[in-house]
This record gives sequence, structure tokens and C-alpha cells, in this order.
Amino acid sequence: MIKNAIVSAETIIKIPFHDVDMMRIAWHGHYVKYFEVARCELLDELEYDYISMVNSGYAWPVIDLHIRYAKPATFEKYIIVTSAVVEYENRLKIQYEIHDEKSGDRLTKGHTVQVAVDIKTNEMCFASPQILLDKLGVE
Amino acid sequence: MIKNAIVSAETIIKIPFHDVDMMRIAWHGHYVKYFEVARCELLDELEYDYISMVNSGYAWPVIDLHIRYAKPATFEKYIIVTSAVVEYENRLKIQYEIHDEKSGDRLTKGHTVQVAVDIKTNEMCFASPQILLDKLGVE
Amino acid sequence: MIKNAIVSAETIIKIPFHDVDMMRIAWHGHYVKYFEVARCELLDELEYDYISMVNSGYAWPVIDLHIRYAKPATFEKYIIVTSAVVEYENRLKIQYEIHDEKSGDRLTKGHTVQVAVDIKTNEMCFASPQILLDKLGVE
Amino acid sequence: MIKNAIVSAETIIKIPFHDVDMMRIAWHGHYVKYFEVARCELLDELEYDYISMVNSGYAWPVIDLHIRYAKPATFEKYIIVTSAVVEYENRLKIQYEIHDEKSGDRLTKGHTVQVAVDIKTNEMCFASPQILLDKLGVE
Repeated sequence: MIKNAIVSAETIIKIPFHDVDMMRIAWHGHYVKYFEVARCELLDELEYDYISMVNSGYAWPVIDLHIRYAKPATFEKYIIVTSAVVEYENRLKIQYEIHDEKSGDRLTKGHTVQVAVDIKTNEMCFASPQILLDKLGVE
Repeated sequence: MIKNAIVSAETIIKIPFHDVDMMRIAWHGHYVKYFEVARCELLDELEYDYISMVNSGYAWPVIDLHIRYAKPATFEKYIIVTSAVVEYENRLKIQYEIHDEKSGDRLTKGHTVQVAVDIKTNEMCFASPQILLDKLGVE
Repeated sequence: MIKNAIVSAETIIKIPFHDVDMMRIAWHGHYVKYFEVARCELLDELEYDYISMVNSGYAWPVIDLHIRYAKPATFEKYIIVTSAVVEYENRLKIQYEIHDEKSGDRLTKGHTVQVAVDIKTNEMCFASPQILLDKLGVE
Repeated sequence: MIKNAIVSAETIIKIPFHDVDMMRIAWHGHYVKYFEVARCELLDELEYDYISMVNSGYAWPVIDLHIRYAKPATFEKYIIVTSAVVEYENRLKIQYEIHDEKSGDRLTKGHTVQVAVDIKTNEMCFASPQILLDKLGVE
């Protein structure tokens, strides 16, 4: 479980052949894709996916990414990516944890931070727009 | 040299770590990226890159891709990608050959076929638009 | 259905955000990954996956790839990749068809060809080794 | 310039078409590749690349990654990736800064942390092995 989760989701991913490097483990850069897939699923559940974001007048670029690798993932291993919104007032911070589906071992954790950018003015918003709060069901 | 080349270009690429699979060779799917980089360089020379294409009113989706692998490429190997326009009347066919920069061995060859699609109508063009002929300097 | 299929499999893939290009469609090169995921699933069903291949003394590099693109796939679209072994005597040829999960439209088709390489001698085999025939349940 | 750099390198990369997302900017996950290419170049200069690492008896997995995005990079933009070793005693910490080649604007910065793992015992080393210090020319 991710602490202080306002809303969370779980995504299962199978490590494909083309993600495995010559050390026979998933190359560390591919975890950003695993986070992306998990985040999209979480945002889908909130009914605030990329298309809805653009339609609501805001882009939400990622401005910060952190990943901490504890154990490697190997070819065809199933991993569970848990993602959770942990901050929303001024920026959208999502926390991730990746566990081995079989052993339950925690392999990786990390976070991304996104900020709202008004598409018309191209200005960064210092407070998250009302639409995000509505989607999260918070005040 | 590519036969029947109307115009051609050469691009040098160094195989990066994240392209090498657990067989210790560049995964076969990454060659599509090497072709893409080479094609962009060729189109840049013609002053008909993606942005110019869109500005001219046409998208040029790839409708056909073929790659023939003869020898593998390994980590940090330098490869030379030769690309050449070999057909243009009804479709844009580009041929590729990849050689090992050091040994001169031919590693791979292939082609892509693109067709013009009118962005306004979303209709495929059965003959290439005049703009392509102008850029190629043919009649 | 793929004609002359000796054995086949179906794989569902959701187009992720990072596969979609600025034309708002899945970049044509990513289909090689979709084929790879489908092929691994097919080979898993045959109990002749990459690890088993290596353990049996053979590598099976892809020597030929062909993709024919009919219609594009967009962000978050679900696609069904059907893969089938259509040749095995001298080389392993797998045919692929990709359909839109919702509309049923065929988006793409293609094939890959692999040949057995004896890992000890690094020699290409002109006839497929007995192990492949055993796994396929053919004589 | 990166502060406290023990040794540094500069790498120029051109943003390829397949790295650009539907927001028309390089997808944030691709920066891990830009860091990887820069790190390999830096390690090549130290004559301690992946192959030398393995030959010296150590693997150096990345255990921590951080990226801070300030400004986006667009299609065909040239970026300069500066990488520098900033810590080596107990772990190998490399800092990165990415600048727009034309405007000089800083687009991104980040770091990676790697630790030595003894390949024979698969144990993590709490102090960096002598070979790294020798390659860095420090005591």
C-alpha cells in the first residue's frame, strides 16, 4: 500500500524480450514506460486521461521523475505496478511501487510530478485547476 | 551504392547500450529507428522534412516496411546507413543498406514505402503530388 | 484466420502513450514490438520460448521482417495480434495480423522469418532441428 | 559546468521523430536514453565501459535515477548532454545537464547512481573497487 494515497490503481505488466538488456535484466530506462502505463490507467479511472486534459484546456507535463531500483526484473516476469495520487493542490504527484507478481518482492519505487499548463497562454498554473479537484472528488 | 538512386544520403549511428538484447546484439526491431533517422536526414537534404510535408498539405504515412538481416550489429559498433529514393511517381520508396563502419560488411538492407495523404480530405493520392517532384528536381 | 496456420495465438495489446507520434498514431516502428510480444506468446504455447531455444543449443535470429500497414492505430486503442506458424521445415516463418479490437478492422499484417543457428559452431542450419518439429507436433 | 566534476564529457544528440509524442515534444522517458548515451561516452573516456566493467569482475547496476525537466525539446532539435562523475568512493554518481545547442537554454538536469556488484558472489560492494579509482586517477 502507498501511504497517503488519495486514489490508487494496480497494473500488471509482463517484461517483454526487447526490454531486457545484455545483463539479462530489464534496462532501467524502461521503468519510465511501466510508470506511464500505470499512470494512464490511474488517470483513466479518474476519467481525466490525456485527451480529457487537453479538452479541459490544460497540458500536464512531467517536471520531475525519481526512480529507486532495489531488485532487477527479468524476461517474462510479471510485475505489479501500484500507482497512487499523493499530492494534488499545486501539482500532481504520483507515487509508484513495483512488486514481483510471484514472489511479492518490491523491485522498484518512484514518483512523477506534473504541473498544469494553460494551453491558451502556455503559462504554468501555481495552483491545480478546479477540474483536477473535481475528478479527484476533493474540495 | 544503391541502384537506381535518384537521391541518397549517408548517416552514421553508434549502437547504444539500450538497443542490445540478451543475445548481445542489437534487437532486430531497432533497425526501424535506424531507417527513420536515415530517412529524416535524406528528407532534410531534399528540404521536404515532416514539418514541410504537413505545411504542404500532405501526410506521408509508411504503408510498407521490409528488412532483411544478414549479419548482427553489436554494442558500440558504428554503422553506416545509406538511404536512397528509388521510386517517386505514385509512392515514395526509399531503399536502405546498413554497413559496418569498420569492416565494411553489409549487415542489413530494406525499404519503406510511403504514400501521400491529403490532410484536408484524408484521401490517399494515387499519384505523388507535384511538391515531391519539385523537391526531387524531376519532371 | 491466418491461412495454412500450423499453430496460432491471439494477444491483446493497448497502445501506450509513448508509442504515439506527433501525427497522433502509433509510430510504424512500434509494430515490431507488437509482433515480438505476440511471437513470444505463441512460442510460450509451444513450450519453445527463448530460454528453451538457448537450452536446446540453438539461437533463432530474425532474418526477415515484412509489415504492411493498412490503417493506423491510435492512443489507448486495443489491438488484437494474431500470430501463426506457417512454415517450419527449413526456417520458422510466422505470419501476423493486427485487428482493431472494437471495430474488427484489419490494421496491419506482416511476417517474420527466423533460422536456427547452432550456438556451439555458430553455423546456420539449412533444415530446422528436430526439436522444433517435436514442439510443433509434426513429423 | 557541473560543480564538483571529477571528470566530464559532452555529447550531442538530435531528437529523432520516434521520440516525439503527440504533445510534439520529446516524451520525458526518452531522456533516460540520452543520459545512457552520455554516460557510455563518459565511461569510454575513462576506459571503463560496460565490457571493461564485466572483465574487471564487477557489474554496475543503476540503483537511483532522478530527472528534473525545465523546458521541453522538440523534433530535430540538437541537445548537448554534459555528464560528470561527482562521487566515486562508495558509489558512482553521475550528474547530467542538457542544454539546447542553439539557444543555450538549460532544458533538463538529473543524476544516476550506480553501485559495484561482485559478479562472482553477486554481492553489492560497500566501497567502490580499486579499479574505478585507478580509472579515475584518484587515490
